[in-house]
Amino acid sequence: MHISKFVTPEIIFGNNSINQVGESLRRLGAKKVFVVSDHEIFNFGWTEEAIYYLRQNGLSHFNWNEVTSNPKDYEIHEGVKKYLHNDCDAVLGVGGGSVIDAAKSIALLGTNGGTIHQYEGVDKITVPLPPMVMIPTTAGSGSEVSQFSIIVDTKRSVKMTIISKSLVPDIAIIDPRTLTTMDHRLTAYTGMDVLTHAIESYISLAATPLTQVLSLQAIRLVAKFLRPSTASKYNMAAKESMAMASLQAGLAFSNAILGAAHAISHQLGGLLDCPHGEVTAILLPHVMQFNLIACPEKYIDMAEAFGEKTFGLSEMEASRLAIQAVQDLVTDLGIPATVSKHGLQDDHIPALSQNALNDACMITNPRDMTLEDIASILKQIV
Amino acid sequence: MHISKFVTPEIIFGNNSINQVGESLRRLGAKKVFVVSDHEIFNFGWTEEAIYYLRQNGLSHFNWNEVTSNPKDYEIHEGVKKYLHNDCDAVLGVGGGSVIDAAKSIALLGTNGGTIHQYEGVDKITVPLPPMVMIPTTAGSGSEVSQFSIIVDTKRSVKMTIISKSLVPDIAIIDPRTLTTMDHRLTAYTGMDVLTHAIESYISLAATPLTQVLSLQAIRLVAKFLRPSTASKYNMAAKESMAMASLQAGLAFSNAILGAAHAISHQLGGLLDCPHGEVTAILLPHVMQFNLIACPEKYIDMAEAFGEKTFGLSEMEASRLAIQAVQDLVTDLGIPATVSKHGLQDDHIPALSQNALNDACMITNPRDMTLEDIASILKQIV
Repeated sequence: MHISKFVTPEIIFGNNSINQVGESLRRLGAKKVFVVSDHEIFNFGWTEEAIYYLRQNGLSHFNWNEVTSNPKDYEIHEGVKKYLHNDCDAVLGVGGGSVIDAAKSIALLGTNGGTIHQYEGVDKITVPLPPMVMIPTTAGSGSEVSQFSIIVDTKRSVKMTIISKSLVPDIAIIDPRTLTTMDHRLTAYTGMDVLTHAIESYISLAATPLTQVLSLQAIRLVAKFLRPSTASKYNMAAKESMAMASLQAGLAFSNAILGAAHAISHQLGGLLDCPHGEVTAILLPHVMQFNLIACPEKYIDMAEAFGEKTFGLSEMEASRLAIQAVQDLVTDLGIPATVSKHGLQDDHIPALSQNALNDACMITNPRDMTLEDIASILKQIV
Repeated sequence: MHISKFVTPEIIFGNNSINQVGESLRRLGAKKVFVVSDHEIFNFGWTEEAIYYLRQNGLSHFNWNEVTSNPKDYEIHEGVKKYLHNDCDAVLGVGGGSVIDAAKSIALLGTNGGTIHQYEGVDKITVPLPPMVMIPTTAGSGSEVSQFSIIVDTKRSVKMTIISKSLVPDIAIIDPRTLTTMDHRLTAYTGMDVLTHAIESYISLAATPLTQVLSLQAIRLVAKFLRPSTASKYNMAAKESMAMASLQAGLAFSNAILGAAHAISHQLGGLLDCPHGEVTAILLPHVMQFNLIACPEKYIDMAEAFGEKTFGLSEMEASRLAIQAVQDLVTDLGIPATVSKHGLQDDHIPALSQNALNDACMITNPRDMTLEDIASILKQIV
């Protein structure tokens, strides 16, 4: 029995919980809040709704909306300049995983200094971060509760994985209403990211009984609610359940880490600037097939969480139902089978494979992977 | 959909995790640690093992072991005097629920001042507490992760329930080895307290999908491991699972609150100074019977978590299996059916009932309770 650690932010969950943001930052000691968002979320009104509650609580702010999907190193450096120049003392992120990852990395540089590249890897942060509150607007990344920030190194065209307890925000405010402004495609992609968090954390070498109960429940919720949530923007029961699934999967993977689907997906995202959830969903069934022999009994648990009937089947028959359930979901959601439309080519594969092998998420994958194993998976999705 | 909040400490779990206590307090900024324990735990050596790691990390300490079972107001006031007189700046509790509740209340008075009576109820704490690390030595109270501290008001002979987010320790270090020094009776009593936390939080009016998944898993673990853990001091698999059950039930009830079994048990403990786990176990089947009509569907979930077969049964037949499963466990563990040996008498009942009605845990009980309802339950256990 190893020693395991479990870290979470304070969590505030429910419709209209955005109205807690001012009080939350005030009790963390904030005076001037650096509000990170992007243009799309700003246009939907969520950023301004949050700012309204900052004002109501007597807090000043500076709003910066220049984050793009797959946030880039230079954006972080530009953001931290604004943070310091405007004498901010706390960070609020309002947006999807890209915005929240960027907000966390800006907070990191705000007190630790230097460039974001210095912090790639595990536990490189030495100075405490300023107070951080995050409001996710996708049910996807889990970044609002996680120890992770993923930033693109634009010189090398790779995603850097930064992992540290210091990156866990102080407070996560999860308001399912925000999910109603996602289009159907983004709902499907981010929902598949939730499922990948749940599955990879469940079979991770660092999984614990505490993370596993959360992973399995997230799988149950995705199995039941991702289809209806993708079908309708305004199915609030489905939105609330997907927000809960995202939260539970986020708590699980933040503490159990992930696996090969994320290790490979990070590289594709860094090279091709394509949607993380889409690429991860395309990779997931292939990676599950590869990992199956490491832990078929866990695949049976997952198949049952999907509602599959395993009674009377052999272990291997039952375990394969988990892969089939994921494949069926990918098909039903209309997710493509390859990454070719984003420009993936055969000659990218050697470098992508090498970078995936070095990704921090590969360490906890339940089956050892070689360069050839990774290349073989990538060849199937070109 | 209401707004719900979920707060947890950082959790370190595993055999030998006591060796993390020095580093944990150091990174919280402690210089001189007030170590709270009791004579029994000190004699088992756990307190000194923790102090060894404080020294290794360059921390001073003052050790105070004067807590008794069902900690008293005057003990808290004596403890905080020692804390202040010795210029301590952090609190470490090493012991069962009584020690940890006392450590938290001493930390509370250490920065907030006054007497402990001023803080009875919900959210009366205004000043942040000093850094707190807790090492539980029973799989029971969950106090190491909870927002609760329960202290006896010796003038009124009642237990005061103090609830505040500020009472959640910074770090909980859960080392299943510490469970090997409990005798069989204490193992059974504290384990039944875990079960009561799990059941009352599951049917609580403040339960959320996040607390419910933890409650149900705690029930599954207790159903499987409390009997063997009670049977043998050295069954480490059972100890590890009961430690995990206690943790999960603690996280659940800290955020979903409890119900009538605790509201009534607090009064019996305050009046008769009897073991909390024993009294709660005696009350639990009676309270479950009373609460059944509020949420039979949740009783079915609990019956299934106990491993009961509900297929083909009517809703009420299936739901009653949960009560039967608890009754069977109580019987197998040799827990008595009444509190008479601790001196409970009929003429205590009116005052006990009135105090139970005012207990903070009564607010979230799923079925409304009158004075007569409480008296009727108490009459069954005299």
